Amino acid sequence: MISTDALVIGAGPVGLFQVFQLGLLDIKAHVVDSLPYVGGQCIELYPDKPIYDIPGTPHCTGRELVASLLRQLTPFTPPFHLEQEVSVVEKQPDGRFHVETSRGTHFLAKTIFLASGVGAFQPKKLRVEGLDRFEGSQLLYRVGNTSDFAGKDVLVVGGDDTALGWAMRLATLDADQPKSVTLLHRRDVFQADADMVLMIEALREGGALQFKVGQVTAYEESGGQLTAALVTDVDGNIAPLPADTLLVMQGLSPKLGPVAGWGLDMERKQVKVNTATFATSIPGIFAVGDINTYPGKKKLILSGFHESALAAFGAAEIVFPGKETLLQYTTTSPRLHKLLGVAPDTPPA
Amino acid sequence: MISTDALVIGAGPVGLFQVFQLGLLDIKAHVVDSLPYVGGQCIELYPDKPIYDIPGTPHCTGRELVASLLRQLTPFTPPFHLEQEVSVVEKQPDGRFHVETSRGTHFLAKTIFLASGVGAFQPKKLRVEGLDRFEGSQLLYRVGNTSDFAGKDVLVVGGDDTALGWAMRLATLDADQPKSVTLLHRRDVFQADADMVLMIEALREGGALQFKVGQVTAYEESGGQLTAALVTDVDGNIAPLPADTLLVMQGLSPKLGPVAGWGLDMERKQVKVNTATFATSIPGIFAVGDINTYPGKKKLILSGFHESALAAFGAAEIVFPGKETLLQYTTTSPRLHKLLGVAPDTPPA
Repeated sequence: MISTDALVIGAGPVGLFQVFQLGLLDIKAHVVDSLPYVGGQCIELYPDKPIYDIPGTPHCTGRELVASLLRQLTPFTPPFHLEQEVSVVEKQPDGRFHVETSRGTHFLAKTIFLASGVGAFQPKKLRVEGLDRFEGSQLLYRVGNTSDFAGKDVLVVGGDDTALGWAMRLATLDADQPKSVTLLHRRDVFQADADMVLMIEALREGGALQFKVGQVTAYEESGGQLTAALVTDVDGNIAPLPADTLLVMQGLSPKLGPVAGWGLDMERKQVKVNTATFATSIPGIFAVGDINTYPGKKKLILSGFHESALAAFGAAEIVFPGKETLLQYTTTSPRLHKLLGVAPDTPPA
Repeated sequence: MISTDALVIGAGPVGLFQVFQLGLLDIKAHVVDSLPYVGGQCIELYPDKPIYDIPGTPHCTGRELVASLLRQLTPFTPPFHLEQEVSVVEKQPDGRFHVETSRGTHFLAKTIFLASGVGAFQPKKLRVEGLDRFEGSQLLYRVGNTSDFAGKDVLVVGGDDTALGWAMRLATLDADQPKSVTLLHRRDVFQADADMVLMIEALREGGALQFKVGQVTAYEESGGQLTAALVTDVDGNIAPLPADTLLVMQGLSPKLGPVAGWGLDMERKQVKVNTATFATSIPGIFAVGDINTYPGKKKLILSGFHESALAAFGAAEIVFPGKETLLQYTTTSPRLHKLLGVAPDTPPA
């Protein structure tokens, strides 16, 4: 059980800046995110696309913004608990929240910051009736160990860099090789890097992997085991493709997730907050960034930054009860210079 | 008379970002500021001091922040009307505002953005009873033309870079020289660049200027003309110093100025706004940054950035009546790319 002043849910740009703002008030935080890396949408949806409206940054990519925010919060770098979603939130008699994640991490948190944007990013599921009962055994959305595929007829479903990358990796393992690797995509055009496509082409010509165009529309089983995917091609013809493991990589999409069941006041799937502290209807839970709503709300990263600053002051009233937290400036405050680990007038190392 | 969609009062960081946010909505702006340069407090109070809490910018000086914001608003660079304060604001029958400045510039503006921070920076006055009636003739707080000092006994009052710089300049003119230049400061230590102090020292040794320690506490006049300053030294002795022109440069301090008389709802010298659009109590006038107040307000630059974004949307309803203004993203919107002058996925030149 991890005790913490603050638990930030979501490691996107606003969650990261929330940690920085909490740090300036000497509030320690842990961070949970569903993705295996920090950065949220910026990394998942537009790592290399330009952003022009971060104030004082005329141009940066999503990846660069995340790198800058991580550099900025260095003095307060929190423990990150990645690849897990919050599954349980229960208020305790002492006012703290017991939080449990999908990986079994437990927290006792004085305050919670919902910075989960459009929601937790989840793999897009293969929608074939009945198939979901194989999830975790013969139907996988992520790779744990490559040795899990040893001796298997593997069908990799997808057409982006991630799908092609894993098809290539599995087709070229040194040990514990699969029996066969087939890449299946609904079109014969990939949404992937040109070099990656060339490498897949070379592997295919060399016979190390197969490529099929089509979609999984049904499956065959025998003795409770998945034995083949039934693939419908562009002409509507259906043919079985022997497979005992499906690795489905059709990208990620955000899901609001269990937040909807916490009893928070919501409006159109957004969490209602007051604009003084960005507190939700449950005292101790704050919501910042794209997940919240209030009159005038615009889903802008720069608004999330402002919200996180005011939310930190809201949390200070709970973390340091009865103590007034005054606004100090990073330019002049010796206390903040100490927290930031900088000498006055000296840039950080 | 200048017609404009928006008039931004204050060219500090928030005023500059306000112009950028208006630009993204295709709203053209003019900017007025009391200082002779843009940047406001960032330049006037901490040009070389570090700021650590601009989101995504781990460290910058006031000067660097202003430079970045100017670079960011390049596609929308507005006409700047500097060294003048707004003196008159009158609502016209057609809903626009007639605005006049201390330099006689006239505007007809559909919307006004108060981004004037702690107020217009004004020269600190020399507090000597009766002396103010010479202001503009024999008592000056700024230099218009150096030739105004030709043949005069000039007393420069102050001890910072600006005061020393002007004393040096007047003592070394090629033409229209003053009869004499005396620098007066209350202490014999200057708050100025070491090189500047050395140059003043050299001029003093060469006899090109005099230096006295003391304060002007009274004056002498003859026939309605100022003839001498009465200077009290550190020991309390009073002596006349012949002078027919006083150039007083004791630094600047902010004054809220005539805003107080516009009829805006105020609270403790701050302008009350709603947090949906940062509109004031007068429709068409918005207030952003340190000048405004609302529940939870913190005087942070990053809050001003958020406020200016929402205020721009508030103004769009007035500038483009009956047209809904949708939020678009600089990362993806072809319309914004066109306004910003960038091709998709390409950084600006």
